[in-house]
Amino acid sequence: MPEYKAPLRDMKFVMQELLDCETHYQKLGYEDASIDMIDAITEEAAKLAEQVFAPINQIGDEQGCTWTDGVVTTPDGFKDAYQQYVQGGWPTLSSPVEFGGQGLPSSLSVAISELMIGANHSLAMYPGLSHGASATIEAHGTDEQKQRYLPKLVEGSWMGTMCLTEPHCGTDLGMLRSKAEPNEDGSYSITGTKIFISAGDHDLSENIIHIVIARIPGSPNGTKGISLFAVPKFSINGDGSVGDRNGVHCGSIEHKMGINGNATCVINFDNAKGYLLGEVNRGLNCMFTFMNAARIGVANEGVSAAEAAFQGALAYAKDRLQMRSLSGPKNPDGPADPIIVHPDVRRMLLTQKSIAEGGRTLLAYLAQLVDYGHSDADEATKQIAETKLALLTPIAKAFLSELGFEATSHGVQVFGGHGFIKEWGMEQFMRDTKISCIYEGTTGIQALDLLGRKVLGTRGEIIKPFSAEVGQFCADSMAMPEMGQFVQPLMSYSKEWGELIEAIGKKAMANPDEVGGASVDFLMFSGYLTLGYFWAKSAKLALEKLAAGTEEKSFYEAKVKTAQFYFQRMLPRAKGHAACLINGVDSMMALESEDFIF
Amino acid sequence: MPEYKAPLRDMKFVMQELLDCETHYQKLGYEDASIDMIDAITEEAAKLAEQVFAPINQIGDEQGCTWTDGVVTTPDGFKDAYQQYVQGGWPTLSSPVEFGGQGLPSSLSVAISELMIGANHSLAMYPGLSHGASATIEAHGTDEQKQRYLPKLVEGSWMGTMCLTEPHCGTDLGMLRSKAEPNEDGSYSITGTKIFISAGDHDLSENIIHIVIARIPGSPNGTKGISLFAVPKFSINGDGSVGDRNGVHCGSIEHKMGINGNATCVINFDNAKGYLLGEVNRGLNCMFTFMNAARIGVANEGVSAAEAAFQGALAYAKDRLQMRSLSGPKNPDGPADPIIVHPDVRRMLLTQKSIAEGGRTLLAYLAQLVDYGHSDADEATKQIAETKLALLTPIAKAFLSELGFEATSHGVQVFGGHGFIKEWGMEQFMRDTKISCIYEGTTGIQALDLLGRKVLGTRGEIIKPFSAEVGQFCADSMAMPEMGQFVQPLMSYSKEWGELIEAIGKKAMANPDEVGGASVDFLMFSGYLTLGYFWAKSAKLALEKLAAGTEEKSFYEAKVKTAQFYFQRMLPRAKGHAACLINGVDSMMALESEDFIF
Repeated sequence: MPEYKAPLRDMKFVMQELLDCETHYQKLGYEDASIDMIDAITEEAAKLAEQVFAPINQIGDEQGCTWTDGVVTTPDGFKDAYQQYVQGGWPTLSSPVEFGGQGLPSSLSVAISELMIGANHSLAMYPGLSHGASATIEAHGTDEQKQRYLPKLVEGSWMGTMCLTEPHCGTDLGMLRSKAEPNEDGSYSITGTKIFISAGDHDLSENIIHIVIARIPGSPNGTKGISLFAVPKFSINGDGSVGDRNGVHCGSIEHKMGINGNATCVINFDNAKGYLLGEVNRGLNCMFTFMNAARIGVANEGVSAAEAAFQGALAYAKDRLQMRSLSGPKNPDGPADPIIVHPDVRRMLLTQKSIAEGGRTLLAYLAQLVDYGHSDADEATKQIAETKLALLTPIAKAFLSELGFEATSHGVQVFGGHGFIKEWGMEQFMRDTKISCIYEGTTGIQALDLLGRKVLGTRGEIIKPFSAEVGQFCADSMAMPEMGQFVQPLMSYSKEWGELIEAIGKKAMANPDEVGGASVDFLMFSGYLTLGYFWAKSAKLALEKLAAGTEEKSFYEAKVKTAQFYFQRMLPRAKGHAACLINGVDSMMALESEDFIF
Repeated sequence: MPEYKAPLRDMKFVMQELLDCETHYQKLGYEDASIDMIDAITEEAAKLAEQVFAPINQIGDEQGCTWTDGVVTTPDGFKDAYQQYVQGGWPTLSSPVEFGGQGLPSSLSVAISELMIGANHSLAMYPGLSHGASATIEAHGTDEQKQRYLPKLVEGSWMGTMCLTEPHCGTDLGMLRSKAEPNEDGSYSITGTKIFISAGDHDLSENIIHIVIARIPGSPNGTKGISLFAVPKFSINGDGSVGDRNGVHCGSIEHKMGINGNATCVINFDNAKGYLLGEVNRGLNCMFTFMNAARIGVANEGVSAAEAAFQGALAYAKDRLQMRSLSGPKNPDGPADPIIVHPDVRRMLLTQKSIAEGGRTLLAYLAQLVDYGHSDADEATKQIAETKLALLTPIAKAFLSELGFEATSHGVQVFGGHGFIKEWGMEQFMRDTKISCIYEGTTGIQALDLLGRKVLGTRGEIIKPFSAEVGQFCADSMAMPEMGQFVQPLMSYSKEWGELIEAIGKKAMANPDEVGGASVDFLMFSGYLTLGYFWAKSAKLALEKLAAGTEEKSFYEAKVKTAQFYFQRMLPRAKGHAACLINGVDSMMALESEDFIF
């Protein structure tokens, strides 16, 4: 199992140096979020991730969760690790002070999450989902509901889930069958079966608050008739203590490709008492609070996986001696050179590194945009942040999960045959990360959201604030001669982005299927461009630091060199996507369903 | 678990219609290989694959192999299935008549193998390796050795392995430590540890003949001091019967990401009696007989996996109802449309289909080239076939395993969350197929072999016969107006291929690392181009059949449409690879090893 080291230096670069989080936090009124405080918090989190979460990652995979007599048990060590997480106050970090939280910015939680996920994807999912449940209640619950649930959820003694999927509907939630019948006391009786419920049942917490979508009899069909409910595993007494078991039971747990340490449950609701969150029939809208946060969480999984796989592959590449460098021995006294001398091994390592670091930057940027929503910033600022967030969330979710998965695959390849062996831990990263391309909306669904609903749905308006930012950056950077290598391609790909949107938009007017035909290639193009912007920004800052003189010359030079790798060897992949998508959908739609195979 | 159906119609198209195997076989003197015979054989093989191999594929994954008290046991049903394989005479198919074989062309075995691998990758590996061992003894053994081993190997009562890798060397076999000390009776005492030995020990056969590389004391260091040996698990008595246990023992089996039904063994040789195959110190050269065949076998795994994942995904895509088509309901009476109406689902299915069918064609073509080597064809014909084979083997191995893996990943995505659940079988295809990108030389190693040793090592000479064939095809097809859509891009990408070779060659003169820097992108470019040629050929034949009038209009139209998809949505990916590789290696080599991470 590769050792996990929290990438603290790079986090500092991204959050503090590049995105100047201190100023950002001060501006938004987070007085406590000073650099000293942030450093102290990330260093503590690093210890927990490295010393508590990481050592049980492989055990979690081997043992998986068990479901015996209706009771779900997590792997050895998970309960204790979660207790340490709670005792460290981590669930409270960015929760509201009035419910016992520390009131720190949510972007700080995103950064901390990367460490936990990188150390142990399965374990980190439990508090991750809990946090989403809290946020949903905070956003849509009544004061009384907030008082009832949030203090316990915030302190971590209760946890939460998100119950959407049913056997016959995942993407298409309008088809859901779970029903919620009104009781006389104002509560609802929830009945139905939910599947694929991550952290759906377990032994980590005293109670579990399920956030459930269901249909109230008489509501419209489709997505307009869905309401949202809080359904506790154990009912809650008047004094807030845990009472009798509610009609919520785990019907089984899934046997999966990966994330075996997380219990993926079938949850049966049998006349379970539930409490309406938000307005009747507005459940899916309320759920988007949860889903948008969850999508950023999944993007974080891509980054975390890339980082973890990179660390594992890098250590092996320095250690493993095999063949001589094509340009002459680099380890002449040894029996062979370390494989890191071979260009193709470096290609894989740098691909991982550029995904991890570039992805981390995109994510930190997104997380800052989320901060605005929780702040007193003026409406115009909030609006711009929201527009950028709406654009970049599906890109981050799908692009970073796909590239994170690619990074884990390189991790296996760098290890050669050993990568395929469980003991080494590299294949677990692959198996765990594949889910990130699927849950919270597959890559295909994110791509439709991006291109259909958002880009074409606003006639391209949605890209303007972000495009303007990129354009401004290019204009501001042109004067620096060393920036030409980044600014020129960035401008050229940005221009092509706009042209592609126009071209697809025109085609889509004649045939709506053109949207689906172009969507994933368009998303990937957008992702490469977006990461290009953040790599160019990183390079610029690094160049400035180098020009000003620094004691960390190697660090900043590495940033510039990785940016160069990204621009030379990663960004041009976008050309392949553009060349494919521009050919349109006709060749996809020509075959009749029955003629796919003979 | 998806049902496996042998793709008999497409095999017929590829082998009989497109590559006219009957004429090919007649020309090479395989009188028995008539169309009727081929049909009868493939139909029988289909039954075995569908009814015997496929049903135990998932069981093999779940149970895996066990190693208890030094004894390796295969999963339930494997022994019986292998017995049926033997009783059906399958091991004998393309083996020499003088040793009990049926003397049919080896290309027929390749086609049959696809069915077995597609049905059960792990199980098919056992006879696959045996076949490689037989071929090696046939090519390099003495008459006495052939008499001793081949009849039993050919009939399948004994099986074989390939023992190359040691803990400290995989790619770099020159470092191997296993030693072979001469005995007075002309045999050798083999001592050393081999790892990652597929089918290294098991309960399927009476004896196992290990084909082992080791160093005879006093031999040169490196690859020039490696000799090849046959080392039986049980010694062989004078009468050919199985005698005492030789000093060969399985030290453990690996726990792996996939192919769990195949025993991947640590094999310890302790003064095991071995018999020299071929000349002293020429072992690695002899081993290439095995390795080249094995690489084609691995390419076949890519094709098989693509086919199996395609079949699974297609069935699900027709069945699963979710969302409405963007261009209006296609299943208005149902609650939603089958997901095959959605363009992005079709993109994934057609990607799988174009990999499976295009890959099958490339493989059948390669297999015919191998036939020439076993034939009395004139030297010039053989030479051309060998040159094409040398060029296309690394392309087929790496490109088809990478794309086969991609196809399995699409299989998971089409299933959404269900794809991640073991029960559905899609994730097993992914886990099983990842090994194909690694063993028998990773993608990176194939790429170096292609670009460094073969293309640049011959100053581009090696591509000429294949390029000439492609050029001739284009010239012959230009007159057909419907062929312009294929011929134009094929010519353009072919031209770019030559230009890329020239550009890399120039750079490599100044810096040998440029070869490694360009290699994988070059291989992928070459793969897309190569498959483009076979798709264009397929389209041409289909167009001709349609023009001539046919009762299978839908089948041939599907060929043309899939070719169109390939040319419009797959082939342009090559542009991304070209754009990346042309930027050279500098950005890969700039970082010092110690500066990859801080």
